[in-house]
Amino acid sequence: MKLAGRDPAANGSFLVELVQWLRGQEDDGPWDGRTDLELLASLVVGQEDRGQGPPEGDPDPDVFWLIELFYGAVGSTIQRRTGVACQLLLRMHHEGFGLVVLIGGRLVVVSRILRDVRRFGFPSIEALADAGEKLVSEGVEMIQRYPEVARGT
Amino acid sequence: MKLAGRDPAANGSFLVELVQWLRGQEDDGPWDGRTDLELLASLVVGQEDRGQGPPEGDPDPDVFWLIELFYGAVGSTIQRRTGVACQLLLRMHHEGFGLVVLIGGRLVVVSRILRDVRRFGFPSIEALADAGEKLVSEGVEMIQRYPEVARGT
Repeated sequence: MKLAGRDPAANGSFLVELVQWLRGQEDDGPWDGRTDLELLASLVVGQEDRGQGPPEGDPDPDVFWLIELFYGAVGSTIQRRTGVACQLLLRMHHEGFGLVVLIGGRLVVVSRILRDVRRFGFPSIEALADAGEKLVSEGVEMIQRYPEVARGT
Repeated sequence: MKLAGRDPAANGSFLVELVQWLRGQEDDGPWDGRTDLELLASLVVGQEDRGQGPPEGDPDPDVFWLIELFYGAVGSTIQRRTGVACQLLLRMHHEGFGLVVLIGGRLVVVSRILRDVRRFGFPSIEALADAGEKLVSEGVEMIQRYPEVARGT
């Protein structure tokens, strides 16, 4: 499996970082004994699931936990590649609509508008790795472009 | 009343902006008929009140509402002076400890660590105006220093 020219199972890849974040939840019990692929499957949403869940009202709190894990892993992959520590901030505006940012120093390293987060997930593990690596690349480029801002206090 | 060389009652001052934010809450009723000073007093915490409130546990939800109003008014004053729209994001980490940022484009315009937010408030209206103007000046300077980043997408 090769994605965006990078082996997703290689050291320092987004997917390996994400697995470590998922394993970091192990105290909670449910991940014990699961393989990496089984852990990653919690972020894979099949077409058949997309229409599921409450069509109206507040999203499932688990969705925010998955968003935190996904963007948290993006942030720590960026940190591993650049040395810049990234902080995650999330603002939900109203039903399922929000803003997620990763901040490094005084720079907004990654910024994404979230829409319809009741459906947060990816069609496959390849798509998940691809989305993560794309955000990591974007973040690394921002830091390379504005290194002084990213190291500012 | 003059603060930091700026008349706090002048057009475009932080205090005038904050009053507009407080008046914007008028639909809720409780502000009807109150003077500007009475509205601003909701952000003034006397010494005698500082020990009050629950000493442990989660902060009063009203505290977050006051923090949003205060930093929201900082953001809109910065916007008025620079033309850069600011977004507020707040992350509470654990009991009363958190991070609040104002983002303009790709720049972290203002960043503050909040400690012990159960006691969010200022000893006087002068101190409130001073704290707000200081944050506004800091934000305006950041934008002047990195205009390209503040206008980035």
